[in-house]
Amino acid sequence: MTAITLTARTAAAFEVPRDGGLRVTNTHGSQVVDTWAITTGPSRRQLSMPHTRVILNRVSVRAGDQLFDDARQPILLIEEDTSPGVHDTLIPACDLARYRQLGHEGYHDNCNDNFHRALADLDISAPELVPGPLNLFMNVPVDADGNISFQPPLSVPGDSVLFRALTNLVIVVSACPQDIVPVNGELQQPQDVEAQLYSVDEMNREVRRDHP
Amino acid sequence: MTAITLTARTAAAFEVPRDGGLRVTNTHGSQVVDTWAITTGPSRRQLSMPHTRVILNRVSVRAGDQLFDDARQPILLIEEDTSPGVHDTLIPACDLARYRQLGHEGYHDNCNDNFHRALADLDISAPELVPGPLNLFMNVPVDADGNISFQPPLSVPGDSVLFRALTNLVIVVSACPQDIVPVNGELQQPQDVEAQLYSVDEMNREVRRDHP
Repeated sequence: MTAITLTARTAAAFEVPRDGGLRVTNTHGSQVVDTWAITTGPSRRQLSMPHTRVILNRVSVRAGDQLFDDARQPILLIEEDTSPGVHDTLIPACDLARYRQLGHEGYHDNCNDNFHRALADLDISAPELVPGPLNLFMNVPVDADGNISFQPPLSVPGDSVLFRALTNLVIVVSACPQDIVPVNGELQQPQDVEAQLYSVDEMNREVRRDHP
Repeated sequence: MTAITLTARTAAAFEVPRDGGLRVTNTHGSQVVDTWAITTGPSRRQLSMPHTRVILNRVSVRAGDQLFDDARQPILLIEEDTSPGVHDTLIPACDLARYRQLGHEGYHDNCNDNFHRALADLDISAPELVPGPLNLFMNVPVDADGNISFQPPLSVPGDSVLFRALTNLVIVVSACPQDIVPVNGELQQPQDVEAQLYSVDEMNREVRRDHP
């Protein structure tokens, strides 16, 4: 098992073989983690939130769910979720334009640039557009009138989500640098998170340990 | 003004200049129309439902709303909506995989292929992935637990949505061929719709007529 600390405001990309796994741990409890997956086979496909929503018949995801790509194939499984299960599928990655619209001047770290940098670190070309991410721990409720609001996460320190790859994947995770709206907690302080990469054997042991 | 009848199950693409307009009329009242917009300037951008949601702070759109592209720029305005205002931003275009998963065998018309064909008719190259459409008249409510369901449209015959282009655009509209779930009405019978293309002058007259 390889464990890395993902420094606040940064991203990393992981090559995860079919049946291998990745755990994302919310070390401080309040950090949103934008998450993407891209297949590494001959015709590249991406994890797609719209296709996942229509197949699950939900705007949310939970433990036991398969997540789907743009060809409606299952590519990721949520093996385990020790958090309250509040994650977002609706909101795009933050980008420089977002921070400008929020009044920030000059450069601001953002998940869009993080995504590109993390893939470049592995010499993987990026898709034409940054896909809409699965925003782990992000609390954006939808009310009965369709209004959305940005609320602090409901997760607590140590909560984690364990993914299993259902095909060979690159998974990108970005510790969101949002510090202007309270998606990363009331203190609006981006924090480190932990990522643990499991081989197929390690993943099987990890899942047996959790479900003896 | 150019009016065309969009035959059930087909799509068309329209070049709409900045400040020109396009009206989509639900002739029979129950037809969902998948709608996309792509800029025709030097660096192509697409109408983006995720970016529109985060800027509007809503999963729905209504008359008076600007709609945004993947760079968070406003590219389309809903000048008028005579329907009850129920449209969808969450669900991807139907594709052959969708109909296979619903049990259909063999080819089935679908909005994904329609999008490609409509752009090809104008010799415009398609993006890497079909963008998530604005699904006019599509009634997919989200309940308090995040569950979604596919309901018949609330629109009635003659209801229409009038768009104004805020930059030079290609707008693609597809009369959705879905006949297995009741998004196109209880009868599950795809129907024709009307599209009316307005020049800038015609659009200004049209809006003055509606708001004297």
